[in-house]
Amino acid sequence: MNQISISERQARAVGQPDLRTIDCDPDFWYPVAWSRELKAGKTLGTRYAGQPIALVRPTEGDVFALEDRCAHRQVPLSKGRVQGQAVQCCYHGWAYGRSGRCIDVPYLGKGKLPNGVRTYPCREAGGLIFVFPGDAALAETVPLPTLAQVADPGYKTRQFGPRVACHYSFMHENLMDMNHQFLHRRQMGRIRARLLGQDRGETFVEARYSFARTGNHQPLAEALIFGRHRDLQGRPQPVEEVVTIRTDYPYQTLRIVDKDGDLIMDLWVAYVPQSADQRTTRAFGLLSVQRPKTPFLIDLIWPALGVFTNRIFEEDREVVELEQQAWDAQGGDRNREVFPVVNHLRALLARAGLRAPP
Amino acid sequence: MNQISISERQARAVGQPDLRTIDCDPDFWYPVAWSRELKAGKTLGTRYAGQPIALVRPTEGDVFALEDRCAHRQVPLSKGRVQGQAVQCCYHGWAYGRSGRCIDVPYLGKGKLPNGVRTYPCREAGGLIFVFPGDAALAETVPLPTLAQVADPGYKTRQFGPRVACHYSFMHENLMDMNHQFLHRRQMGRIRARLLGQDRGETFVEARYSFARTGNHQPLAEALIFGRHRDLQGRPQPVEEVVTIRTDYPYQTLRIVDKDGDLIMDLWVAYVPQSADQRTTRAFGLLSVQRPKTPFLIDLIWPALGVFTNRIFEEDREVVELEQQAWDAQGGDRNREVFPVVNHLRALLARAGLRAPP
Amino acid sequence: MNQISISERQARAVGQPDLRTIDCDPDFWYPVAWSRELKAGKTLGTRYAGQPIALVRPTEGDVFALEDRCAHRQVPLSKGRVQGQAVQCCYHGWAYGRSGRCIDVPYLGKGKLPNGVRTYPCREAGGLIFVFPGDAALAETVPLPTLAQVADPGYKTRQFGPRVACHYSFMHENLMDMNHQFLHRRQMGRIRARLLGQDRGETFVEARYSFARTGNHQPLAEALIFGRHRDLQGRPQPVEEVVTIRTDYPYQTLRIVDKDGDLIMDLWVAYVPQSADQRTTRAFGLLSVQRPKTPFLIDLIWPALGVFTNRIFEEDREVVELEQQAWDAQGGDRNREVFPVVNHLRALLARAGLRAPP
Repeated sequence: MNQISISERQARAVGQPDLRTIDCDPDFWYPVAWSRELKAGKTLGTRYAGQPIALVRPTEGDVFALEDRCAHRQVPLSKGRVQGQAVQCCYHGWAYGRSGRCIDVPYLGKGKLPNGVRTYPCREAGGLIFVFPGDAALAETVPLPTLAQVADPGYKTRQFGPRVACHYSFMHENLMDMNHQFLHRRQMGRIRARLLGQDRGETFVEARYSFARTGNHQPLAEALIFGRHRDLQGRPQPVEEVVTIRTDYPYQTLRIVDKDGDLIMDLWVAYVPQSADQRTTRAFGLLSVQRPKTPFLIDLIWPALGVFTNRIFEEDREVVELEQQAWDAQGGDRNREVFPVVNHLRALLARAGLRAPP
Repeated sequence: MNQISISERQARAVGQPDLRTIDCDPDFWYPVAWSRELKAGKTLGTRYAGQPIALVRPTEGDVFALEDRCAHRQVPLSKGRVQGQAVQCCYHGWAYGRSGRCIDVPYLGKGKLPNGVRTYPCREAGGLIFVFPGDAALAETVPLPTLAQVADPGYKTRQFGPRVACHYSFMHENLMDMNHQFLHRRQMGRIRARLLGQDRGETFVEARYSFARTGNHQPLAEALIFGRHRDLQGRPQPVEEVVTIRTDYPYQTLRIVDKDGDLIMDLWVAYVPQSADQRTTRAFGLLSVQRPKTPFLIDLIWPALGVFTNRIFEEDREVVELEQQAWDAQGGDRNREVFPVVNHLRALLARAGLRAPP
Repeated sequence: MNQISISERQARAVGQPDLRTIDCDPDFWYPVAWSRELKAGKTLGTRYAGQPIALVRPTEGDVFALEDRCAHRQVPLSKGRVQGQAVQCCYHGWAYGRSGRCIDVPYLGKGKLPNGVRTYPCREAGGLIFVFPGDAALAETVPLPTLAQVADPGYKTRQFGPRVACHYSFMHENLMDMNHQFLHRRQMGRIRARLLGQDRGETFVEARYSFARTGNHQPLAEALIFGRHRDLQGRPQPVEEVVTIRTDYPYQTLRIVDKDGDLIMDLWVAYVPQSADQRTTRAFGLLSVQRPKTPFLIDLIWPALGVFTNRIFEEDREVVELEQQAWDAQGGDRNREVFPVVNHLRALLARAGLRAPP
């Protein structure tokens, strides 16, 4: 305990900023919408860390992304009308092309068109629309992430995208620390996580766990995916899957490999800051589940799996929002973290993120 | 474009304040309620720019207006009881006369009555109750405005009074700039405004427009009032009315004169700041429409006219509130206005208003 | 009047703080929950002046009270699970005993347990759970208050516990100043309070009133409790009860003694600050009514008494919340109190409370 207090005091002494005031590094591709949310010939207003972004999908051609404020009177362009490869502001009809340049003011001569609006590099993959909110010059050199197993027909992938009223760092810590299975005891039965190993580098932290069931109760949806772990007498047996959780900045994955080395579940998730203070987050998650030998079985259990994961996520959402509320009430971080994996993760998030302006 | 940026930079250099921080000049008559809202023997709580005002209508005699806070414990007098020519606070029964003087504290001797509350000059005209929120000494010298055609039986007048979550200056600019007909394209069909001329003085800005219909669609309510503009072959014809919009500080009017010089529509509107920061507004509007030759026709179309003007107003409300939200998010005015009439109007509102205390 | 203004000016000159910024003295026993709200084996989250408090009732043994934030990640312990004489945090299962000491972290060796959380002295009496939010060392020396007549079978006691959006001081003043019967004229008929006498000391202020009915209307519930005051001709007679209101810091009581010296009603109430700025309050009240000679009569009128007192309280709640709103809008206290009893009470609350940090 003294050791913990000392390291905390040292951190404060050297002026380390509060983790919950560290902004995400914007020089990555962040999802800002699901593809299905944006129909052809339509616009969609979204945001990254307080920056309003208008997504525009022309009837022909790729989606593009503009600052969601008309240069004229700052009304959202996402309220406007798509015309060919341009979007027209709803108010006075100013039109902007794919590059953000103003190409028409209906009541002004073409010679004296005003400047336009910011444009964001924009890509679409795996059912998600990504923008690059940072330095556009870097966009070409930064790859899109691998999106679970969306491209592999051997897996079925579920999308989920909740909004959570907390700083993104609470989300990373929540998933990384599997000791929080206690929180899900009603959904999951009594499970004890055991840390098998960890790994870390400049841009990632990884932890590997096995799980031992300490009670009898195994939920239906879990049993259908992973099979029942019972011996010949019907007594519950230790689960032998390995669960690997990895924050590969700024994304997070959870992969489950069974005792034969098969990847049976692959979760990818991005936490996208919504408000300028980054204390609200929208998660975009892709959960790929290996299709079983009996092909229709996955479709059969799919609804139950949805209910099961939603319930678990609701418990997580409640607790991370309570963490943010405690941070707000106390005006700062009072965490006393004792789990080394989480402390490594906190260091990574602090190192890779941006110190918010004071 | 460079010219605009330079003039903006100059404005900032000479310390011109942000227009959205300029307060209305209180030395005018402002409507604060509809007459029908205040029954005989009753009180009504209203406000001007954060100042709570109690309107009192005795059973006999004119309405009067007091500061809406009891001198004792600051409870609103508008929660109180009208007794003769006085109002009694609901809490301990302190009574105030028309002059604001405290005339009774039920449990105190008459000799030691405390001071009273502020009184506001108050008048009633055209179905509106006006107060003079500024220097009361000036009230007698400042005339009430002309209220559309409320007094002329040749017109039928509609009242409307929405609350809008934006600074009053956005409302003035919205109506003055008829290029915003683009916003109403679904209600009005495709119309192009043409600026015929403008005029301005120390206390007013005026713009005159004609309108050309560029599409086929003309809404029913509009056709009933103004007639259909079609040639013998049924093709739409240019509309020949002249629309004059005028901000005569602090009021605004819109008048439509037909090709024979008849005033067919006369709109008067006042924008009354509600909150102390003046970023919320209550509009009081009077819309006078000339009765057609067939007298019952106006009654027939009256409901349709109401629906039609409400829909248009809802579009205006949404867009000016979006402007205010952008101002709030950006912490200041980023408008790049290119329309000279609006720039003259902005200069008038800045010149005539009060710079808010820092 | 001049005298009042002078005393006000003097108060400001000597730097007396605004009464509505004075915090309650925490070195008293404050109720924070009703006993019936906390079942055996359960937890309850409550608060005192912004401090979150977890109440824990083990299956066996007394209730105890802890800071409602896990030492680990500050999640409320009141969301947790009671295990024996301890409470386990819902998130990672950290466990805390009655003393607040951390006694288990499921995934950590027993040797390196972290520090625990603050504990509050806690007692249960009269259907209420009390904590001592101040200096715990003083708790033993400060007695619990007398709780109306909860212990006397000759009385029936009603609990009420509304939340009110105002500083506690407005509540004390409301009850102490019986001239506010004007507020309840619709419920109570026309009553005039007469101050019979007052008394005060270092820690209390007391006022005694008699009441004269000036109108004919006497509500049913009141008549049933106190009897009708009519002469042989059926004309209303002066009421001869004496009502004594006393703030015995920090509690308040209202006692009614009839002309024979019998205590017919005894109200005890505590006003417990909720938010850190103490501008929201939860009241805990116990209203003891003497059982009449005909024993079932009290049960018969009990519902009517509830409705009657609720209506009166709703009127009080509205008016004190309006007082707080005026304070908020004006940024400070503009009260001009003319009633000496209330001025003595204000001095007591200012003297006994804590000046809030600037």
